[in-house]
Amino acid sequence: MNQVIELLKNHRSIRKFSDRPIAPELLRSLIEAGQCAATSSHVQACSVIRVTDPGKRKKLAELAGGQDYVASCAEFLVFCADMKRPTDAAERAGADVTRGMTEQLLVATVDTGLMAQNVAIAAESAGLGICYIGGIRNNPTEVSQLLGLPTHVYPVFGMCLGYPAQNPEIKPRLPVEAVLYENEYDASRQQALVQQFDEAMNEYYLARTGGKKDTDWTRQLAPLFSHKLRPHMREFLKKQGFELK
Amino acid sequence: MNQVIELLKNHRSIRKFSDRPIAPELLRSLIEAGQCAATSSHVQACSVIRVTDPGKRKKLAELAGGQDYVASCAEFLVFCADMKRPTDAAERAGADVTRGMTEQLLVATVDTGLMAQNVAIAAESAGLGICYIGGIRNNPTEVSQLLGLPTHVYPVFGMCLGYPAQNPEIKPRLPVEAVLYENEYDASRQQALVQQFDEAMNEYYLARTGGKKDTDWTRQLAPLFSHKLRPHMREFLKKQGFELK
Repeated sequence: MNQVIELLKNHRSIRKFSDRPIAPELLRSLIEAGQCAATSSHVQACSVIRVTDPGKRKKLAELAGGQDYVASCAEFLVFCADMKRPTDAAERAGADVTRGMTEQLLVATVDTGLMAQNVAIAAESAGLGICYIGGIRNNPTEVSQLLGLPTHVYPVFGMCLGYPAQNPEIKPRLPVEAVLYENEYDASRQQALVQQFDEAMNEYYLARTGGKKDTDWTRQLAPLFSHKLRPHMREFLKKQGFELK
Repeated sequence: MNQVIELLKNHRSIRKFSDRPIAPELLRSLIEAGQCAATSSHVQACSVIRVTDPGKRKKLAELAGGQDYVASCAEFLVFCADMKRPTDAAERAGADVTRGMTEQLLVATVDTGLMAQNVAIAAESAGLGICYIGGIRNNPTEVSQLLGLPTHVYPVFGMCLGYPAQNPEIKPRLPVEAVLYENEYDASRQQALVQQFDEAMNEYYLARTGGKKDTDWTRQLAPLFSHKLRPHMREFLKKQGFELK
């Protein structure tokens, strides 16, 4: 196992940071590394809002469901899927652009994911810790207003960055056999592998909480999917110009 | 700049590979590294189909728009957004699951992007080259049938992997200032920065083609957005159980 693969396998979300700031030239280098990720047809459909305003940070922490580290981490970046920049450019070149296609949402969301993951890995390689904040989609309209996001741009997730002040355990993952198939999808073997994973997760939760948290992967997912997950997203995306045609 | 950031900044899509196979234990390690990426609420909503069947490879190369390297590369992986595994698990735990939420599409698509990018970086760190194949969304229904994808699973992109038999130049990216904003999105400065980037891209295309390809970023985007991008995606996703409620 080389050092890069070792780094990737060592990922943990960090939610407690020291006060040490991130040097501006390092931050810039992280963004540049992010931009070097693959991008569909070179559209480069991701924009990043670096939030330095303490008032906006505090508000974002609330909007994300009361996650204090959003306000207190050294840097907080909001990764936005941006179909405005490439389609505006195409329009200036005389194209009769159709916006709001479902495919455009996918392209911009994937571009954003790849870029952000490069930023995350670059950050971790420099000794920083990170945490993705999907919670900004709890209140995407308010987040978009706060950051002045125009139509055809939507906030996919945030990312906390900073020097870690905690060293949490690595959270287990499903067995490789449960996610990797050869030539065709095989649902038949999933249940047994998930059961095996549930046992590992149960041990993990018990060990971490001194026996208090007696749950597993499957039981953790049940409440998550028992309610309609962020049911406002469809309407929000539509208003933001992603009509999903 | 550390070696990991250097690796990230050195990314090029590779479309020509040597015959050298990828060792099974390395491939497994790449997938494991992929799984270690962050995942929204630990749902782990990505499954990977490793396509080894030569007939399926050939068919996928055609379905992706005649990309021969899909058939000839050492390994071809199809990364699928998989909401079936976590929602099935939640159902077994007694949850009354609502599927087809727009948010679920986003969660699974982002999870897939983060995992794939980890696989890509792990691969490049081991001396492999990779190329994302978004072209499988040209014919997503046929791809899904070929790989036996059940409802609530959709193919986001493929990835060619192998030892490189070419050494293409790094493709330039937009200036950092065009993608990174502080506290709010600023569309006003975009046009000038894009113009500056167009000049750089024009030089890049001219140099690469001995003066034959006289174009730039903006002019390349115009035809891409002049037609409706993969207009079948909405209906395909709906049939696949992603109703986008």
